[in-house]
Amino acid sequence: MKTLEEIGACARAAEPLLRTMGTAKKDEALLHMAQALLLRSGEILRKNEEDVRRAEENGMASGMVDRLRLDRDRLEGIAEGLRQVAKLPDPVGEVTSMKQRPNGLMIGKKKVPLGVIGMIYESRPNVTADAFALCFKAGNAVILRGGSDAFLSNQAIVQVIREALAETGVPEDAVQLIEDTSRDTARRFMQLNEYVDVLIPRGGAGLIRTVVENSTVPVIETGTGNCHVFVDESADFDMAADIVYNAKTQRIGVCNACESLVVHEKIIDAFLPKLKARLDEKKVELRGDERALKAASGVLPASESDWGTEYLDYILSVKTVSGIGEAIEHINRYNTGHSEAIVTSDYANAQRFLNEIDAAAVYVNASTRFTDGFEFGFGAEIGISTQKLHARGPMGLDALTSSKYIIYGNGQIR
Amino acid sequence: MKTLEEIGACARAAEPLLRTMGTAKKDEALLHMAQALLLRSGEILRKNEEDVRRAEENGMASGMVDRLRLDRDRLEGIAEGLRQVAKLPDPVGEVTSMKQRPNGLMIGKKKVPLGVIGMIYESRPNVTADAFALCFKAGNAVILRGGSDAFLSNQAIVQVIREALAETGVPEDAVQLIEDTSRDTARRFMQLNEYVDVLIPRGGAGLIRTVVENSTVPVIETGTGNCHVFVDESADFDMAADIVYNAKTQRIGVCNACESLVVHEKIIDAFLPKLKARLDEKKVELRGDERALKAASGVLPASESDWGTEYLDYILSVKTVSGIGEAIEHINRYNTGHSEAIVTSDYANAQRFLNEIDAAAVYVNASTRFTDGFEFGFGAEIGISTQKLHARGPMGLDALTSSKYIIYGNGQIR
Repeated sequence: MKTLEEIGACARAAEPLLRTMGTAKKDEALLHMAQALLLRSGEILRKNEEDVRRAEENGMASGMVDRLRLDRDRLEGIAEGLRQVAKLPDPVGEVTSMKQRPNGLMIGKKKVPLGVIGMIYESRPNVTADAFALCFKAGNAVILRGGSDAFLSNQAIVQVIREALAETGVPEDAVQLIEDTSRDTARRFMQLNEYVDVLIPRGGAGLIRTVVENSTVPVIETGTGNCHVFVDESADFDMAADIVYNAKTQRIGVCNACESLVVHEKIIDAFLPKLKARLDEKKVELRGDERALKAASGVLPASESDWGTEYLDYILSVKTVSGIGEAIEHINRYNTGHSEAIVTSDYANAQRFLNEIDAAAVYVNASTRFTDGFEFGFGAEIGISTQKLHARGPMGLDALTSSKYIIYGNGQIR
Repeated sequence: MKTLEEIGACARAAEPLLRTMGTAKKDEALLHMAQALLLRSGEILRKNEEDVRRAEENGMASGMVDRLRLDRDRLEGIAEGLRQVAKLPDPVGEVTSMKQRPNGLMIGKKKVPLGVIGMIYESRPNVTADAFALCFKAGNAVILRGGSDAFLSNQAIVQVIREALAETGVPEDAVQLIEDTSRDTARRFMQLNEYVDVLIPRGGAGLIRTVVENSTVPVIETGTGNCHVFVDESADFDMAADIVYNAKTQRIGVCNACESLVVHEKIIDAFLPKLKARLDEKKVELRGDERALKAASGVLPASESDWGTEYLDYILSVKTVSGIGEAIEHINRYNTGHSEAIVTSDYANAQRFLNEIDAAAVYVNASTRFTDGFEFGFGAEIGISTQKLHARGPMGLDALTSSKYIIYGNGQIR
C-alpha cells in the first residue's frame, strides 16, 4: 500500500502529461473505460455485494444501503456518464482573451488544468467514476478518498479504470484511490499542500464542515441548500403554487429543493390555503409563524430553529413578511447561499430581489430546482459551489480549470 | 476594543450596503478620503514617527525601517493611489453572459463582490490604504490585520478613512483594523469562517506560509517568484542579454525578478561571457553548474539549493541544459509558478514553452518583470496570485469579485 506522500508524488508525476494531453486521447480513454466497466461488471458487482453485506450487518439505514448498492443498470448508467463526458467540449487550451498592450506585448489568458484534484466523498460508488471522468477530461490528475463503506466497490472501479487508462497509453496514476480509509489519513490528505492543488468534498454537511475546518489545501465547498421561495403580493397564485410545489416535492433530498416559503402578509390568507391543498397531495408538513397559523388550518407552529433548517424531507417552513425588504432581509439572514426565488409580477421587486439576494443562483418566477449543471447547459456537474471563490453555483468542466497568461513579445524590457 | 467576533459581525452588517452601493458613491468616498489623508497628514506622520522610533529602538534593519516610514511625499502617493482607484471602472454588476435555455429560462452570470475580505500584511503602512481602496471599490468590506511595527500608523490611517467614509454616508465598518496584534488573535482571524469570505496575505514567504497552514478561511496565496529566463540555442544574443539584464537588475527585491538563467549548452560559450560583461556593471554574482564555470571566468559554483532559491539580490544561478525539453523539466521542477520566459527565434520551441511551462505568466522574448497588474492593463493590483484557484497571476479589481447566476423565468418548473 502506497503512503499518502507516494500517492501525491505519483499524481504530480502524471500531471504534466495530462496537462498537455490532446482531447482525442482523453476521449478515447473515457470510451475505453466505459466499455471496460461493463465488460468487467461481474467482478465490480461481486465486490459491491461484499460492501453491501457488511453495511447491512453493521446496521446501515436502508436509504444509505440503497445509495451504496450497484447493479447492472447502475453500472450502465456510470458507463453512459463516461461516454457523455467524452462528448463534452474540452475546456483546456481555450484562449479566452488576447490583448495587445501599448508596448506591443500580446497578453492572452488561456484555460489550463488545475493540476491535482483531491475528491473526498461518502458512500456512493458512482461518484468514483463520475468525478474522475470530469477531472480527467479537464486534464487533471485525481486522488480519490471514498467512504470506507464503499471501499471494495471503489477499489474495483478504480482498478478497472487504471487498467483501461494504461491500455490507452495514459498514465494510470491519473487516478489513485487512498486505500487507508482511516480518519487520520483523511486529515493528512487535507494538508497535502505539496501535492494537491484543490480539494472537492462531496457529501453531507458534516463531511463538508470537516474538510473546510481541517484542510490547508484550497477547498471548493459544495454545500447545503436552505432555499427559499418568496411569494410576493403581486404573484400569480397558480404560478406561485406550481413553483413552490415543484421546488418542494419534485425531489426532496436535494440541495436545490425549497425548504422555506416566505409570503407577503397581504396575500397569505388567500394564497396559503390554496398552496396547502396542493402540498397535502404529498403530505407536506407546514411549520409557520403566528400569521401563517391563522391563514390556514393544519399548519404547525415553527420555532426559531426552523428558519435555518434544511429539512431534505416533506416539511416546509412558512414565514410571513411585510414586503420585499423584510423578505430579502430574512432570506439573506438564513439562506446558505445556494438558490433563492421570488414569484412576482412587479418589475421593481423582481430587479431588487435579483440585486440584493446574496446567493449562487437567484430566480424570478422559476423553481429553485433548476440549479444544476445539466439544467444550466454545462453538460455535466462536479457539484454546486456555495462559496464565493473560484466557482459559485453549478460547476461544470470550466470550474475544473485554472488559467495562465501567455505573453508574446519581441524583446520588450521594462 | 472590539473582539474579533464583534469586528466580524460589524463587517457582515456593513456588507449588504456595500454590495449594492453605486459606483458614484464609492468614488466620492475614495476622493474624499484622499483629501482627508492629506489634510490630516500631520497626525498620521506623528503616529508614524512613533512607530519608526520604536522600530529603531528595537534594532529593526534599516531597509525595513525605510518600508515603515511615511513622509509627505509617500502620503501624497497614497492619496494619489486612492484617486486612481476612483477612476477605475467598477467591475460590480457586469453581466458577463446571458443565455436562453430551451425551456425559456434566461440564465445570466453577474459579477458581485466577494463579501468580507481579510488582509494580513506586514510593516508597510501604505498597504492599509491601497488594499482597502481596491477591496472597497469592488464592493467588499475589509478587515485589516497589519504588522505590530506599523500599528500606530495603521490606526491613524484607518481612523481618517473611517471618518471620511462616515462623512460621505458610507458605513464606516467598510474598514476595520484588528487592534489586538497578538499571534493568537491572528490565528483566530484565519479561522473566522463565519464572517470572512477570503483572506489575502501580503508579505514575505514566512507570512504567506503561516496563513496557508493555519487558515480555514479560503486564502488567495500571493507568492514568491523563483523566475527563470531560458536562453535557447536560436536566441538573438543582444535581445537575450537585454532581457536577462532587465529581469535580473531593474528591481531586485520583487517577485517577478529573474533568479535563474537556463542556457542551451550549444551557445553557452558564446553567450555567457557576453552576458556576464553586462551583469558585471551591476556586480551580479553568477552561480553556475560545471558547464557554466567553463564557459565564463568569474562564475562561482552553484549547489543544489541554488536552483530553488529566490535571492531577491544581485545573484543569478546559471543552469546548462541540452535543449528545450530539459529546460522545461528543470523550470517546472524548481519554479514557484510565477513568471517564466524563453528567448528564442524558433517557432516550435516558443509554442512548446508556452504550452508546457506551468506558471501564472509564461513569456516569449520579453522580461519577466512585466507580471504586474499595471503592466497587464488592469489599472491596479492587489497582489500576484501563485495559486491556481480563483485567480492566477496579477490580480486587479476583477479578482476581488465573485459571481452569481441571475435567472429570469416565466413560471418554469422541472
